[in-house]
Parts: sequence; C-alpha cells; structure tokens
Amino acid sequence: MKSRRTLNIGLCGLGTVGQGVWKHFGRFRADLEARLGARIVLRRVSVRDPRKARGVRVPASKLTTDPLSIANDPQIHIVCELMGGTGTARQVTLQALARGKIVVSANKALICVHGAEILAAARRHGGHFLFEASVAGGIPLIKAVREGLVANRFPRIYGILNGTCNYILTKMEELDTPYASVLREAKRLGYAEKQESLDVQGWDTAHKASILAWLAHGVWVRPEQMIVEGIERITPADFRNAASLGYGIKLLAIITRDFATNEIGVRVHPTLLPQETVLARVSGVFNAISVTGDVVGTTVYIGRGAGQDATASAVMSDLADAVALLLHGKGAHFMGEDRPPAAKGTRLAPPERIRGRYYVRLTVADQPGVLARVATIMARNRMSIASVIQGPSERAGLASLVLTTHESDERSMRGALRALTALASVREAPLLLRIGDFGD
Amino acid sequence: MKSRRTLNIGLCGLGTVGQGVWKHFGRFRADLEARLGARIVLRRVSVRDPRKARGVRVPASKLTTDPLSIANDPQIHIVCELMGGTGTARQVTLQALARGKIVVSANKALICVHGAEILAAARRHGGHFLFEASVAGGIPLIKAVREGLVANRFPRIYGILNGTCNYILTKMEELDTPYASVLREAKRLGYAEKQESLDVQGWDTAHKASILAWLAHGVWVRPEQMIVEGIERITPADFRNAASLGYGIKLLAIITRDFATNEIGVRVHPTLLPQETVLARVSGVFNAISVTGDVVGTTVYIGRGAGQDATASAVMSDLADAVALLLHGKGAHFMGEDRPPAAKGTRLAPPERIRGRYYVRLTVADQPGVLARVATIMARNRMSIASVIQGPSERAGLASLVLTTHESDERSMRGALRALTALASVREAPLLLRIGDFGD
Repeated sequence: MKSRRTLNIGLCGLGTVGQGVWKHFGRFRADLEARLGARIVLRRVSVRDPRKARGVRVPASKLTTDPLSIANDPQIHIVCELMGGTGTARQVTLQALARGKIVVSANKALICVHGAEILAAARRHGGHFLFEASVAGGIPLIKAVREGLVANRFPRIYGILNGTCNYILTKMEELDTPYASVLREAKRLGYAEKQESLDVQGWDTAHKASILAWLAHGVWVRPEQMIVEGIERITPADFRNAASLGYGIKLLAIITRDFATNEIGVRVHPTLLPQETVLARVSGVFNAISVTGDVVGTTVYIGRGAGQDATASAVMSDLADAVALLLHGKGAHFMGEDRPPAAKGTRLAPPERIRGRYYVRLTVADQPGVLARVATIMARNRMSIASVIQGPSERAGLASLVLTTHESDERSMRGALRALTALASVREAPLLLRIGDFGD
Repeated sequence: MKSRRTLNIGLCGLGTVGQGVWKHFGRFRADLEARLGARIVLRRVSVRDPRKARGVRVPASKLTTDPLSIANDPQIHIVCELMGGTGTARQVTLQALARGKIVVSANKALICVHGAEILAAARRHGGHFLFEASVAGGIPLIKAVREGLVANRFPRIYGILNGTCNYILTKMEELDTPYASVLREAKRLGYAEKQESLDVQGWDTAHKASILAWLAHGVWVRPEQMIVEGIERITPADFRNAASLGYGIKLLAIITRDFATNEIGVRVHPTLLPQETVLARVSGVFNAISVTGDVVGTTVYIGRGAGQDATASAVMSDLADAVALLLHGKGAHFMGEDRPPAAKGTRLAPPERIRGRYYVRLTVADQPGVLARVATIMARNRMSIASVIQGPSERAGLASLVLTTHESDERSMRGALRALTALASVREAPLLLRIGDFGD
C-alpha cells in the first residue's frame, strides 16, 4: 500500500498560464490522488498585485506577493514557476532547487539563457527541473524526444514553434494582406502581444530551438550564435511567388546534426516549405514539429503551441511527473538534470557548411541591365540561379526581381547579399528566405 | 553515485522486430549505460529454429528454443516478448510477470485479448508491463496519451493505425487502380502480409483501438463489440466520388466518449475525411493519430506505424523505461499496471447513439424508378439524403447510385441497409462508408 503522503505545490505567477493551472487543478488533483494515493495541495500562489481582477478566484490566505517565500518554504515540495522573465524567476528557480525541490517551468527565455546553470543546480542538490511547457505548448514534445525516442540520434528536427508568427503568416497568405494590417488584427484578437518583437523577430522561436538542441544534442546554443531572422519584411507578393514555385512560407526553427562531422546547426528563419509537406499545411496558432530520428525515421507532432489551456496541460503533466518522482523515487530517467550523452566533440557548423537553397527578393530600378548585374554578382559568389521572377514592385516606379538558387551555403549567400546591397540599382535591402526541401 | 548494477534482458522472438532490436542494441546500450550508470546485457534470445538464416548474427551461446526458460530465468530482469501470437506469448508474459519481472511487448493481439489478465498479473506481483510498440509503431503515442496528456480526458481519439491499409488506399487513389491489383503489388513489395485478412478486414486496427480505448478510458472493449469494417470492397470509383465531394478515404479507428452520458464508442471503418484534414494527407505506410483532450485541444502524431526500425525504436524506449524503473524504483507513474481512473460507470454507446453522416454506394439495375424506391426506403428509416451521384457501374449493364446522408445514426442506417439489400433492383450488397466531419 502506498502511504498517504501530502505533497504541497507552490505556484509562482498567476498570469494566463497560472490561471489555467488553477482552473484545471481540481479535477487534475482528484485524478492524480486516486491514481497515486497521495494528497496533493496547491498551497500557495504568488502574484505581483493581489488586488488585480483575475479570471479565477484564489483565497486570500493562499496569496503572497513574495515568490521567493514560496521557493524557500520548507513545506513546499514542488515549485511551479510561471512568472516569466529572467530575473526573479531565475532566483526563485535556483533557490527552490538549492533546497532540493522540484521546479516545473514554462519559462523558455530563462531556460535558454540560464539552462546550464539551472540544470547543474538540480543535479547538485538532487532536485529536478521539468519544462515540458516551455516548447510547443500542449504538445508533449519534450517527453517524446527525451523518452519516447530515447533510442534515436537526431539528424534533423524542424518546426513551427511560435503560434503568433504562424497565425500572421497564415492570414497574410489567406487574405493576401500586408504584414502590418494582419499584425494589427492579431493584436486586437489577442493572438499577438502588444510588444510583438520577441515573437515576430524570431527570438521566442530561438529560445525554444535552443532547448530542443540541448535535448537532442546536449549542447547549449545561444540565440546570438544562431541565424535568427523574423517575418516582418515578408510581403503578400512573397506568398504569391512562393506559391507559384510550389511552396508555402513558415517561420521554422531548424536543428541539424551531421554525425560524420559532428557539426550542429541551429537556425530560425522564414522558410519556403513544399506545399505537400505536412508542416506547410499547419495553419493559424498551431505548432508543428518534425523530428527525424536515425532509428524511427520521421515523426511529426502537431498541436496548440500556446494559450492558457494547452500550456496548462503541459504544466500539469510535469506536475504529475514531479509527484511520481517524489512518491516513488528517481524513476523518470531522462528528467531535467540528465545531460544527453551525445554532446562530446560537437561544434557549431560554420556558415560555409550550412547548405541550402535560397529565395532572394530584390527591389530594383525598373531599367534594363539590372538582371545582368545581379546574375554577375551571383556567379562571382559561386551561386547558381534556379529561377527568376520579374514583376512590378509594391513600391511605385520600381521593379521586383525574385531569384531562387540551387544549393549553396550561407557564406556564399552572405557574400552575394553584401554585393547586391551595394548595387546602385538595388533600392532596398534584399529580402532573403531559405528553401526547406527536407524531403518529408 | 549510482551503483553499477547489471540488468539482464531476455529477448523472446527474433523476427523482424527482434532483429531490429538486436541490430540497434549496441549503441542503445552504450548510451543508456553512460546515462544511467548500470550494466545492461542482452543475455538470452529465444528463436523457433536456431538454424534459420537471419539478417543478424546472434552467438549460439545466447540462443534457446525455449522462451519459457527466459521467462523463468531468475537472472533475467526484463523480458521482451516479440514472438507474437496469443498462446506461448501469453504464457511467457504471465510467467515473467509472476516472477516480478518487467515485460516489454509489441503484441497488440495479445494485449487486446488478454490485457486485463496481464495487467492484473503485473499489479499483483509488483512487475510492470510496457507496450509502447503495440500501437502506432515508432510514434510515442502511448507515452503521449498516458503521461504527456495526463491532465486530459479524451472526448475523441481517431487515427490511421494500419500502414498496410493506408498504403493500399493511397495507391488505389493515386493510381486509380482496383484493390486486388494494389494488394498484389503491396504483397510483392512486402507492405502486405501473405495472409492479409487481419490487416485489410480491420482486425489489426481494432486490436490497437482496443488498447487506445483502455489507455484513454480504462475499459477493455473487444473487437467483437465494435463496428469493424475493412477496405476490401472499396473501388477506385469510391475515391473519385469521395474526391468530388471533397473527401479522401482512410481506414480509421475512432474512439469517442461522451462525458455527459458516459458512453464510449469504439469503431473501425473506412471513413471519408475532408481533404483539408491533416490525416487525409497522410499517405503510404505512415500512421497518424488525432488526440483531442478536453484541456489541450487537438494534438496530432504522425510517423511510421510498422517496420523493423520504427518498432524497435518503440521497444527500446520501453526498455529504457524498464531499466530506469529497476534502478530507481517505481517512478514512472502511469506505466502498465495503473488503471486509468476514468472507467467508472461507462458503457458502450448503443447503435442509436453512434451518430454520423453516411456514404452508400448501390449497384442497381439501370432502369427508371430505382432512385424513387431507394429514396422511399431512406425516408422510412428517417434518413435524410444530402447528395446523389448516379453513374455507370463497374459491372456491365448495371448502374451505380451513390448517396450521402445528413446526420443520422447506426441503427437507422442498418435498418435502411437491410431494406435496400432486399430491393430487387439492388444487385449486390450496398457498400457503406462513413463520413468523418470531425472539424479538425
């Protein structure tokens, strides 16, 4: 018989996700108590402003404005950090781990920047750090990569990890509408934050890519070491051009590893995906991730990547794992503190080894000879042109010149972009998109 | 520090999947030993015929022809049952569990028929029974439903669970070719078994549906309690008709639960899926499962549902869980022996409560008045016709009459089918397909 132990949970943060956890906690607790035979109590909740109106009612006796008091409360076994940010959240996390507690986190920015330190703290003090909700919202992707596909090495993982961007891109394509007006509408509907730059410039996706790269390859890659490009400069014309070539456009995180050279690539950029690809058809706020393992082949995971309920679902799965860990010992083998074994001897792929095909849109003077000059620059940079689309520009009096290339590499492409930008007949910075012919 | 314990694995069966496990075991063991600090040994392997030529070389000293000796070997901690069948496999499983061992199984037929007995044995003797490989091959679907989505109840799970059927249906549609010739080609390529009936008549899918229903709802539903219909009578014309209505055709397992009435539905049948649905586009031998949770919303999982490597990947993830369980105690909370808590008070939905839209293809005498007689029968059975496609039949001198209906139920549909079959002008048994307008 299992002993009827009481396990206390402290919730730091009562924003969107925290309220989601609170909302679903009653049934979740009843199920878990019936199954595991322990008493589970949501004991304390920290908020910044106890008087703020919220969608859920939390008894005043449970509320505190001091999240560190939760981290340090010897009665609390599991700390659920849903505040966000990398300041107090880091302190709360490290202090809770220093006391041997289990910390459940949805804070991708914190993990991306301080993951190594946090996981070392968990290891050192015998605690655990669980973060299913930090990547791909409700999709149990971290568990899939870490446990379900444990027998695999991962030559390629790529996916749509930011619902805001996918919503914007979907609407731009469907409605043939410019970025700015779709963004406005997305803000109005709550699908985009008031401060949208973290999402639309690709940084949120980069945080998640960093976590996935660590899970798959055991190395921390910081966003500033990646190629990170956002979606702000994409136009409806790019969708039309892409469609005419058989592609859709998605903001992807792409994590590759070449097991011959042991080179790892982590990048985030808008990508032309063949229209028949499953991911090209994932629309709106949904996330989708393609995980290729060397044993299992390619598996794909689709679901809501954000939102109160989907994220709460992931947080609660970590809470269930945490409860099981506390009741039954260190059974879940690939949880938080374990470092994947594959990290030895890896290095980041240098630009000349990141290969692919490219789509370049140039806004040029509408005059003869421009294509010749552009083609000369491409040739000088050893880039072979696959197709050319010429048409009117959205800017009056100018023309649009769209090139796609055969396979080349980032160094060559950067050289070509520098030279193209310097051309007098090129009237604004070239827009570069990459083509993702992944073959599945 | 972890103690350097030795854990011994016994492998019963060295067919396709067993050879896959053997092939990948070296690297898997090295990874796992580095991570978990134990020694892991594949100690014995049982085969029916030790002299048979195989794709892998197993030292003669490890081989036995007696799988029960592995189940009863006190040195062996984990028994991996990959023989198939429900006779010896059941004995091996029960004897290993009776000795408190962990059993890893890919044997969906065994679990479907004897799951309750097996899980009770695991519970009684403190062992564990793990079966990730039994459903959806390499996709970590069981872990997703059981652990990743633990905070959810599941109003609907549906999916493509048989790669052979999906391959046949995909080729029939792509090549506009009859069932029999696609089946012949599938057998030649190794995508269909010589004895194909278990797959094409839907029984293999039913076994997997039974396991998923248990995972989601805690009740065992036997195939003979389900609607189980296969793909043998589908024709290229059905694909053309479906396409003209905006649908593809997939063999689906559909598991529903109405939480208001607590009624569970489990059925397997060819289904018209809207072409824009992700699952409608999953082609060839791939499996795909849509899991709707009441908290997370809809998540979708895609990957190879069979084959040596994909299935071995799933078996090895169970082996990793088994090793962790043995080293660290009963940590993995929702493994085998736990009964989902949601089973209380459920009952199977009676036919009149299984609602949906229908596609009926009739082969009729090419003469006036047939549609009127058919329409009268539909009306008498309270079925409302949504569309009619009349055309030539593939049988000379006869006509094809295809009806789709508005929403109705299985009881009404069965009544209508009986009356239609009895009509003199209806010249062969009606073909019934169901329409899956699931909305995601």
